Amino acid sequence: MIPNLAPDVALAERLFAELRARSFDGVGITREAYGPGERMAHALVREAAEALGLEVRADPIGNLHMTLPGQDRAARRVVLGSHLDSVRQGGNYDGAAGVLAGLAAVAGMRRAGFTPGRDVTVLAIRAEEAGAWFPTSYPGSRGALGTLRPEELQVRRADTGRTLEEHMREEGFDPDFARAGRRVLGPDTVAAFLEVHIEQGPVLEAEGIPVGIVTGIPGSRRLRAGRVIGEYNHSGGTPRKYRRDAAMALAELAHRMDEAWVRLETEGQQLVCTFCVLATTPEAGFTKIPGEAVFQLDVRSVNPHACDRMFEVLYDLVPRIEARRGVRFELGAESGSRAAPMDPGVQAGLRRAAEALGIAHRLMPSGGGHDAAAFAQAGVPAGMLFVRNQNGSHNPREDMRMEDFAAACAVLARWVAEVAA
Amino acid sequence: MIPNLAPDVALAERLFAELRARSFDGVGITREAYGPGERMAHALVREAAEALGLEVRADPIGNLHMTLPGQDRAARRVVLGSHLDSVRQGGNYDGAAGVLAGLAAVAGMRRAGFTPGRDVTVLAIRAEEAGAWFPTSYPGSRGALGTLRPEELQVRRADTGRTLEEHMREEGFDPDFARAGRRVLGPDTVAAFLEVHIEQGPVLEAEGIPVGIVTGIPGSRRLRAGRVIGEYNHSGGTPRKYRRDAAMALAELAHRMDEAWVRLETEGQQLVCTFCVLATTPEAGFTKIPGEAVFQLDVRSVNPHACDRMFEVLYDLVPRIEARRGVRFELGAESGSRAAPMDPGVQAGLRRAAEALGIAHRLMPSGGGHDAAAFAQAGVPAGMLFVRNQNGSHNPREDMRMEDFAAACAVLARWVAEVAA
Repeated sequence: MIPNLAPDVALAERLFAELRARSFDGVGITREAYGPGERMAHALVREAAEALGLEVRADPIGNLHMTLPGQDRAARRVVLGSHLDSVRQGGNYDGAAGVLAGLAAVAGMRRAGFTPGRDVTVLAIRAEEAGAWFPTSYPGSRGALGTLRPEELQVRRADTGRTLEEHMREEGFDPDFARAGRRVLGPDTVAAFLEVHIEQGPVLEAEGIPVGIVTGIPGSRRLRAGRVIGEYNHSGGTPRKYRRDAAMALAELAHRMDEAWVRLETEGQQLVCTFCVLATTPEAGFTKIPGEAVFQLDVRSVNPHACDRMFEVLYDLVPRIEARRGVRFELGAESGSRAAPMDPGVQAGLRRAAEALGIAHRLMPSGGGHDAAAFAQAGVPAGMLFVRNQNGSHNPREDMRMEDFAAACAVLARWVAEVAA
Repeated sequence: MIPNLAPDVALAERLFAELRARSFDGVGITREAYGPGERMAHALVREAAEALGLEVRADPIGNLHMTLPGQDRAARRVVLGSHLDSVRQGGNYDGAAGVLAGLAAVAGMRRAGFTPGRDVTVLAIRAEEAGAWFPTSYPGSRGALGTLRPEELQVRRADTGRTLEEHMREEGFDPDFARAGRRVLGPDTVAAFLEVHIEQGPVLEAEGIPVGIVTGIPGSRRLRAGRVIGEYNHSGGTPRKYRRDAAMALAELAHRMDEAWVRLETEGQQLVCTFCVLATTPEAGFTKIPGEAVFQLDVRSVNPHACDRMFEVLYDLVPRIEARRGVRFELGAESGSRAAPMDPGVQAGLRRAAEALGIAHRLMPSGGGHDAAAFAQAGVPAGMLFVRNQNGSHNPREDMRMEDFAAACAVLARWVAEVAA
């Protein structure tokens, strides 16, 4: 029988309030990766963990490991965690919810006098918000997992101009550990990694469901610097057949890719296709046929095949539109990431926990990327539990109801109790 | 029999060179309306007209009338003209070609000792380049025709911030003449108006034809400040059905209007449809679904019905796209102008002249607007003769071959000789 280990949600609530008070920037929440905001958050969480009597240490990358020792200290541990940095003027819950959910679960075990069969480590991960600070994916978790490449230590933060390595050293950590390819976590030492995170999307809110069990973190194929080159001409004096209209060419590409997306969804594929930027350039103006347009394309799916299908459509359309409209597409460099399916065993365990607790839930793909992808790609069985939230994320209006967070903590605690029994 | 009155193309060539030398701004040609550039051009042309012994006077609006007296001074006159202002950093021929073609034709008559049956007036019109200087259409010609509305005297030039009225006064003219609704030209005094002008489009060049006989100046229906309002959301975390993607909505509108244009052309309609601006806003960026997009739409046709058909398509599409994509269109104010068909008698006369001279020609609609529209709308039989030109217009690369200009002058001279015989 699985013991009833009610999580200490009140502790998490207190810590959320402290975090907010200490990182409100006048507009939203700012916790700079490897900077004052993240440092403050790690110190606050360390203090709470020490008060709970957990074993606390920072690894050479700066991730904070807060461990409730288990009966078999040599057994592969369970890791519960997420990140504590935020984007600039973001929200309080993106990242922090996963760390505080882990602490709430472990505090619940402590309160019940429960000693798990194996170590349970709450992990506060560094620098997950790549878009906001360091332009590389998951340097904190990948640094711990030994999968951060040495050259990635040289990426520079846009605001300071200094490298990831310099920022790590300034905070007192040791980038040489990553350079040497060493690791503190891996499939040999971690039985499972679980990340609680706000959904950041509208699905749970729209469907009235408090938690989502994540099936996978999508891979992506991306064009960040697409251009269409046509020719500026007088909009009155240039008949259709003499036009090289960059805007109409781009509108056709976007609309036809949108139609292809609908077809793929009809076939049962899950994917998203977004022209994040789709724009004539500042030279455009009234009475001119646009001679240039730019675009950014972001295609994502938990099924890599679906991304490839969309890019097949793209590569099929481009030469045909070029020939028909007298324009030239410059697609620029393609970037992207591999999809990271979540571990089926973790997904099944989370479903069992939610069902036992009578908490409504659904399976769903993640929209964005998360540290759990780094664990999955390093071979660690990984899972994610989404919490319903309001107003998206990466903005000051980001919100989450505490009862939904409590539901996620309950599922987490029950899952840990089973896995670490 | 029509006398052979070879135009004095050499005179025009000399004046083109003088104009260029005196209005080259380092990049292109700049002749400010009611400013130093236009003033210089009017002085230069006045000097040439006086040397030819023409009757020269400026009207209260500032247009320059250079008249070769005819045998019957009371008969309705023939007016040949165009404008002398240019856009900033534009070309030398846009406008000036029509004035100098008129002078060349009249100089040819003088040289042959020919006295026309009626007065022939070469008209140098003020301030045609509305987009560049005063945001109102044809204030010079409409001022002469008595169709300039008093409130239009108050439009301001963007660069100086001063009104059209103030600029007129500074150049020594009398805006009260326009305010009182008085006129110096009209159907009672003008038998026909003919404007020679560079084509500004690629048709004659592409088809190897030196001159075009204009069938009409298109009317337009325009949206200069269209917006699409959607919702910014995470491009990864927001499935299709929860999206309110402003860019995809605009791409669909543009592409479907483009398809409608193709259908109308198949039915034999002549029109153009241009999204001069089609753009996500600066808030757009990677990993965001665009929450806003803006557009400018310019639909033109010599057949007003064709513009209306396109706007019917627009008004049909907008609510359907709104409903399907959860966005809202704000079309903003619509502006536009009435189509101005060119006089069939003038068209026929120009064809006879071109055929008699063996000069290849074609009928074609105008792309842009021209002073000839103001004459047509005031009830004066009006026509236009396009000259093949290179590299469009309103840019420093605008060009025209002198042999094509000579061909246009020859057609013009022969037409005048017939009309004013």
